[in-house]
Amino acid sequence: MATPNQAYRTLDAAGVRAYVANQAHLAERLGGTPATWQVREVSDGNLNMVFLAEGPAGGVCLKQALPHVRVDPSWKMPLDRTFFEAAYLREVFPHVPNLTTECLHFDPEQFILVVESLSSHTVLRTALMQGPVNPDIATRIGQFVARSTFATSLLAEPFEKVMNRRICFARNQTLTRITVDLILTDPYISHPRNHWAEPELTRVVNAIRANAALRARVDALRLHFLSNPQALLHGDLHTGSIMTTEDDTRVIDGEFATYGPIGFDAGLFIANVILSLFSSPSGQNSSLHINMINSFWQEFEKTFLTLW
Amino acid sequence: MATPNQAYRTLDAAGVRAYVANQAHLAERLGGTPATWQVREVSDGNLNMVFLAEGPAGGVCLKQALPHVRVDPSWKMPLDRTFFEAAYLREVFPHVPNLTTECLHFDPEQFILVVESLSSHTVLRTALMQGPVNPDIATRIGQFVARSTFATSLLAEPFEKVMNRRICFARNQTLTRITVDLILTDPYISHPRNHWAEPELTRVVNAIRANAALRARVDALRLHFLSNPQALLHGDLHTGSIMTTEDDTRVIDGEFATYGPIGFDAGLFIANVILSLFSSPSGQNSSLHINMINSFWQEFEKTFLTLW
Repeated sequence: MATPNQAYRTLDAAGVRAYVANQAHLAERLGGTPATWQVREVSDGNLNMVFLAEGPAGGVCLKQALPHVRVDPSWKMPLDRTFFEAAYLREVFPHVPNLTTECLHFDPEQFILVVESLSSHTVLRTALMQGPVNPDIATRIGQFVARSTFATSLLAEPFEKVMNRRICFARNQTLTRITVDLILTDPYISHPRNHWAEPELTRVVNAIRANAALRARVDALRLHFLSNPQALLHGDLHTGSIMTTEDDTRVIDGEFATYGPIGFDAGLFIANVILSLFSSPSGQNSSLHINMINSFWQEFEKTFLTLW
Repeated sequence: MATPNQAYRTLDAAGVRAYVANQAHLAERLGGTPATWQVREVSDGNLNMVFLAEGPAGGVCLKQALPHVRVDPSWKMPLDRTFFEAAYLREVFPHVPNLTTECLHFDPEQFILVVESLSSHTVLRTALMQGPVNPDIATRIGQFVARSTFATSLLAEPFEKVMNRRICFARNQTLTRITVDLILTDPYISHPRNHWAEPELTRVVNAIRANAALRARVDALRLHFLSNPQALLHGDLHTGSIMTTEDDTRVIDGEFATYGPIGFDAGLFIANVILSLFSSPSGQNSSLHINMINSFWQEFEKTFLTLW
């Protein structure tokens, strides 16, 4: 945003009801009258406000950027992250219509994004903590990564189209900075944002910080992340960005979208399945986690090569 | 250019005199009165009009984009290429002030770029055809490539600065398309723009076209060129883009500037020295050419590593 946006107001549940009522195509999707709608805040991620609005005919999910990190108001942040999430959905939805959500509405003044409601879905991270999940979920994520990255890469399109999309997403610098700092820098150094409750981790943390070869490798990966804009990435494809039912899987929260190496989305997913494995009580479900990684990779490779 | 620019007019020598006279800082550089200035067209490259204007105190070089390729009016082309050349000079001049020319003036309506005059210099391509040159020229080009690429890379700056510059130069698509087509695609296929006068070349051309491994390697290089924006490249660093005297070397014609792999500028320079070697009568000066390649590479490597 070049200039402060005086019209911006943070919505509450009543504001969401009024806002949806004013958008005919959204109101129609809910059906009934606004007074009959159920609106509840379900903000679960770290950054934004999220509301579900449901009526007799259906529901929508409304996401609004705050001028700061939701869970840390002292961490100021520009509002435009929902712009990039909306732009990401517009780019990839046609290629993965059954694996993410359609952008139903984007408001560039209030930085509100509206997508279909997934109120019957569970966050994959939660599902994995509760017990075994359908391993097909990983196959579907392999499809998602292959199709969304191939379609936005130089393998699918003249370079001019790819460059124009890169120009757009290269502005998503606030969230890319978070990736660079919180994923690719801070964990390997002493930083005030690093803390851990378990004293038995201290030895592991010190070993990582003392390992020059590992740190050089992370430096190279950080440079690779920033220097290889192969395709449009989701950029935050952990198990908290995936919602599932037994037979449906949707990738959400594309606000970190940026051009980068295709391996970044694939690596984040695999790494988060591994984290889930190590955090599960005494390694139960380890065959599930290993199956998920194999299924993901096989499907990703097969789909990508078929598209090529 | 989003809209046609009605104010644009192609200048002739009289127009150049009037234009320079109207820019106080340029007129002052020439000295004397406009009537005493010498203005001559020296267009030598393929794309643009180039004039030298000289007065008693000094001279300037004025370059104007045409709405088509200068040597082929049927090949229409947007005017903004001088914008990218001016932007390139602004970025790299501070890092290589004695190895390129300063941008003295840029006119975004007439697409006129004015730089210092190099009327006492010879184009390196011409100098190489005429006989031995000072091999230090290659050392200076090694300096130029190392300093200009390092300064604009992620090794020198926070990624936000690099991304903002990438956003600018990713719009230089018309000239990048020329590189992609004329350097990285057309020479390896049958294309109407390919022609050669020497029948003995036909066998070589056919061998190249039939060599699937070579063509796969070129495909990979083209993808690498478009997918690895490591640093701001000159993008057209052949021996015709370098002007020299015995003790001064300047890189000119940065209109192809784009973010890409650092090896592209280095490779173009080395390849053009090799072309010069093979086109010289019976390989005379081969030790000069080999020395130039070695000097270039040693200086490039030493300078880049020192900066790092």
